[in-house]
Amino acid sequence: MKTKLYHLVFLLILFSGVAQAQIDKMEPPFWWSDMNLPELQIMFYGENIGTYEVSSKDDLIINNIRKTENPNYVFVTINSGDLAAGNYEFTFSKKGKRDLKKTFELKQRTEGSALREGFDASDAIYLIMPDRFANGNPDNDSSVEMQEKADRAKQGGRHGGDIQGVIDHLDYLEDLGVTALWSTPLLADDDAGYSYHTYAQSDVYKIDPRYGTNEDYKRLADELHKKDMKLIMDYVTNHWGSEHWMIKDLPTYDWVHQFPGYENSNYRMTTQYDPHKSERDFKYCVDGWFTGTMPDLNQSNPLVLNYLIQNAIWWIEYSGLDGFRVDTYSYNDKEGIAKWTKAIMDEYPYFNIVGEVWMHDQAQISYWQKDSPIGAIQDYNSYLPSVMDFTLHDAMTAMFHEQDASWDRGMIKAYENFVNDFLYANTDNLLVFMGNHDTGRFNEIYDGDFQKYKMAMTMIATVRGTPQIYYGDEIGMRGDKGKGDGAIRQDFPGGWEGDEQSAFTAEGRTETQSQYFDLTSRLLNFRKENEVLQFGKMLQFLPENNVYVYFRYNDENRVMVIINNNAEDQKLDLKRYAEGIQDSTSGKEIISGETIRLDETLSIKAQDAMVIQLQ
Amino acid sequence: MKTKLYHLVFLLILFSGVAQAQIDKMEPPFWWSDMNLPELQIMFYGENIGTYEVSSKDDLIINNIRKTENPNYVFVTINSGDLAAGNYEFTFSKKGKRDLKKTFELKQRTEGSALREGFDASDAIYLIMPDRFANGNPDNDSSVEMQEKADRAKQGGRHGGDIQGVIDHLDYLEDLGVTALWSTPLLADDDAGYSYHTYAQSDVYKIDPRYGTNEDYKRLADELHKKDMKLIMDYVTNHWGSEHWMIKDLPTYDWVHQFPGYENSNYRMTTQYDPHKSERDFKYCVDGWFTGTMPDLNQSNPLVLNYLIQNAIWWIEYSGLDGFRVDTYSYNDKEGIAKWTKAIMDEYPYFNIVGEVWMHDQAQISYWQKDSPIGAIQDYNSYLPSVMDFTLHDAMTAMFHEQDASWDRGMIKAYENFVNDFLYANTDNLLVFMGNHDTGRFNEIYDGDFQKYKMAMTMIATVRGTPQIYYGDEIGMRGDKGKGDGAIRQDFPGGWEGDEQSAFTAEGRTETQSQYFDLTSRLLNFRKENEVLQFGKMLQFLPENNVYVYFRYNDENRVMVIINNNAEDQKLDLKRYAEGIQDSTSGKEIISGETIRLDETLSIKAQDAMVIQLQ
Repeated sequence: MKTKLYHLVFLLILFSGVAQAQIDKMEPPFWWSDMNLPELQIMFYGENIGTYEVSSKDDLIINNIRKTENPNYVFVTINSGDLAAGNYEFTFSKKGKRDLKKTFELKQRTEGSALREGFDASDAIYLIMPDRFANGNPDNDSSVEMQEKADRAKQGGRHGGDIQGVIDHLDYLEDLGVTALWSTPLLADDDAGYSYHTYAQSDVYKIDPRYGTNEDYKRLADELHKKDMKLIMDYVTNHWGSEHWMIKDLPTYDWVHQFPGYENSNYRMTTQYDPHKSERDFKYCVDGWFTGTMPDLNQSNPLVLNYLIQNAIWWIEYSGLDGFRVDTYSYNDKEGIAKWTKAIMDEYPYFNIVGEVWMHDQAQISYWQKDSPIGAIQDYNSYLPSVMDFTLHDAMTAMFHEQDASWDRGMIKAYENFVNDFLYANTDNLLVFMGNHDTGRFNEIYDGDFQKYKMAMTMIATVRGTPQIYYGDEIGMRGDKGKGDGAIRQDFPGGWEGDEQSAFTAEGRTETQSQYFDLTSRLLNFRKENEVLQFGKMLQFLPENNVYVYFRYNDENRVMVIINNNAEDQKLDLKRYAEGIQDSTSGKEIISGETIRLDETLSIKAQDAMVIQLQ
Repeated sequence: MKTKLYHLVFLLILFSGVAQAQIDKMEPPFWWSDMNLPELQIMFYGENIGTYEVSSKDDLIINNIRKTENPNYVFVTINSGDLAAGNYEFTFSKKGKRDLKKTFELKQRTEGSALREGFDASDAIYLIMPDRFANGNPDNDSSVEMQEKADRAKQGGRHGGDIQGVIDHLDYLEDLGVTALWSTPLLADDDAGYSYHTYAQSDVYKIDPRYGTNEDYKRLADELHKKDMKLIMDYVTNHWGSEHWMIKDLPTYDWVHQFPGYENSNYRMTTQYDPHKSERDFKYCVDGWFTGTMPDLNQSNPLVLNYLIQNAIWWIEYSGLDGFRVDTYSYNDKEGIAKWTKAIMDEYPYFNIVGEVWMHDQAQISYWQKDSPIGAIQDYNSYLPSVMDFTLHDAMTAMFHEQDASWDRGMIKAYENFVNDFLYANTDNLLVFMGNHDTGRFNEIYDGDFQKYKMAMTMIATVRGTPQIYYGDEIGMRGDKGKGDGAIRQDFPGGWEGDEQSAFTAEGRTETQSQYFDLTSRLLNFRKENEVLQFGKMLQFLPENNVYVYFRYNDENRVMVIINNNAEDQKLDLKRYAEGIQDSTSGKEIISGETIRLDETLSIKAQDAMVIQLQ
């Protein structure tokens, strides 16, 4: 008897493992009716599923069935545009095998979903690294599903911050005056040893369990929306992690760029437009991998491109996003990323997407913005609404060291940056920032000099564009990038149980933290209430004696901003600024709260900033 | 009798001085028939001439008579387009006065004048300061007509160089391999103490007598043409000198920009396109004077603009010019200078004009070139065919100091410059140069390091665009701009009788001078004979180890250029450059004359340059 039973079990195992395929993954896992996208490409994954015939019935019309050299995949394109919400069934058949059935659900969309309004210049964006912000749920710091375990002692390790931690501190964001949250990626990243940055993703339909669940992410969006705040997802189109389940079993050889296998990018994004470029350099830039653990996705393969478009739309629709920040935008295949961007903007015409275009020349940055006159030179249109003002960042991290103004030193660097605004299609849709998770910390660069921060933060809050604050800058946080990326991505004080002090509350903040926070909050809250600082026109004056004066104005209001980067107090002859002051005789200085007489002259202290609401 | 004679003389003086006007100036002094310009504005100057009626007879049709607030001027516009060559008479009448007659001549044009071909990328331009090049006629070093007298001992004084000196050394230019001469201005400049630069002109229809006569200038053009060389006049539209005879008796108050009177320019040419500019800053840039002795001409006054257009055309037609270099182009009234440029190019469609646009951003330089996609952003078209590649100059004066290549140091600076070529409408029409009369001397910046000159000169002779050599650089001349402009404008050795040595002849040159000259001559003469270096396409490779490799190519020929800015010898893996080398297996290195095998690798010495004509 014993022997017979053993044989039977063996046969059952054999039968289930070889004779009968099963569907392990279906992506997207569900969809919605009434979407603008007419077709949907559903990917089925399971051992040998590609050897089956796929069929459907009734309203479910299959437009295309695409099998690849890997028998474990089949891509089925359906005519989803006209389908009503409900469940639909696919049948997978093979001679001599039992049919497999798979149900696909089309959900009802939330009302107004298509016309959602993305972030814009009325917002101020707060950027966090979620592993380093706040640990709301210590139980998920490590996960059995994921390789790397929490170790807060390691600068480059996982510290346990999570979605719940963010949800717990939305009041802090509200007090600060920010209105949108950009969190660096939260999707699963199963890198064995360096996963906290989460740009090497292993499953793009799943929130990393160490941050929470998909439902938690949706809850974060809901909680933000309750406070009239917005959620921006950090999306990575350029690459996945080498631990991605599909990378380990590639659907097609060309799903990623291969040389064969890995070669690193040369990072020279200028090959994207150089008329004299070598094709080899160009290929190494765009097809080379960002690092050895980040295989470079091939967006010129339509299967890949559709997968990425749908995944992006899925997250918008599922969690209720208000925007994307797209990582390494200008490293992507140029035509592919434009199609990706356009598909999303076609689906959500008032959405917003900001691309990371980390370059140091305004024409080169402008190139990547929607309807750019620079892109048009090469008949290129990315359809990307928003780019980042990296040249202003460059100026900000240099000019406050330069008290010795000259032809090209000091505040002239800011002035010159705005001169080139004519190269952009839309300057309201430029992100303005003094730092992010990849750059040196502002307060480290300026050695904790509050007055430098005051000048810079005043500009961030009052120039054209959409301000972006990097978490911690608003409490004077320091950290030397020279000591590693972890040094600029420290834990926010108070985010962990047992932290010595908490900067999340006025009571918890040190005197220094309060000084930074109060200034930032005052400026951002003023901006929040004053449309003139969001969408007003700008008028700037050539700096004199290292004093930079500009105005924001519209038909109703005018604000005068003065940045004195001189080492000495300055007295301004106000006649020079008559175009901006017009007939105002006084104004309210927002930072001090004082009323200012606008007579013949105006005094400003050394290394100081003033924001005057003209009356 | 004595008393009566006295009275009679007195009456005669009175009669001639008051009762009878006379015409002291008529400008232009003559013109040509068969010109494209349909109308001609003739300016008559003489005491109270504006109080007379002007008439003509027969074919001479007066379209307009314009009198101004100054009675000493009258501007008469005639219908010159249809008139045959010949003499025409104007009559000036006033009640109770004798009629005045003035003959105006229309000459016959030289055949082919309208279709003359200006300089282009097939040329190499040699820039001289005529006071400092060669003194061909010691008799005209000073002139009774002009205030400042020769004093060779003074760095900023007049040294006596002249047109005859240039004519005497055309063989030198021919040997050097240059094909076009740009001389800084030669028109009269009667500044009392600082006139040798000749940018503060006092009469724009007259060559400064210390340089020669109008006929001498025409002879210079003729002699150049005999050698298949071209003449480029340095034209100043932006300002005249305060000693200009018309400035001393302004035709109209607004002939020049007044505040009233003098205010200096702030030189911030970026106000020309800044969308946020203050009108005050803009006015101070464009209307402010270049210096206190250079009143700023108002090109938005049609009388001024016509005067400048006609004067420019007059010099082209009179002396047989092949091009203009226009001083301080981007300080001019933007619309006015575009009209000026277009009028000249309409008259001579194949002429060339290069404008001094001294900026440090390619988009900002491109803005000023004809049909610029950047200018088009603001619906601006300057019609200026050629601009100067100042950003390449910026790179050239920095990168050869940088043996420690990094992301943005070393040869990458050259590479990055050419990346932005897509911003230009026409890169063949960019002047490429390592210095000019306003910049630091290359050989001073690099402390007389011949290898740095070799690398730079190789690039000047082989990159896209039109090379421009500043006199003296080709013999290793030094001079520190920090010690004053005169220090970069030294006398060319051998240009003055009694000079210790002459660099004009092979025998006269020192060993060092010969080293510089021979290299320059070899490169320029090679370029002269090889169209591929003039108009060929360019292919560039991302520098590695501070070695920059690029190719010029067309359907027939390919040239490979290698610049090794590394402090060590380098061995290149040639596989990387297969796109450029194609199936060539050898080439001739032009500087050494050696034949080079193109096998797997190629060696190049530290701080060296190679130009390989592929076979």
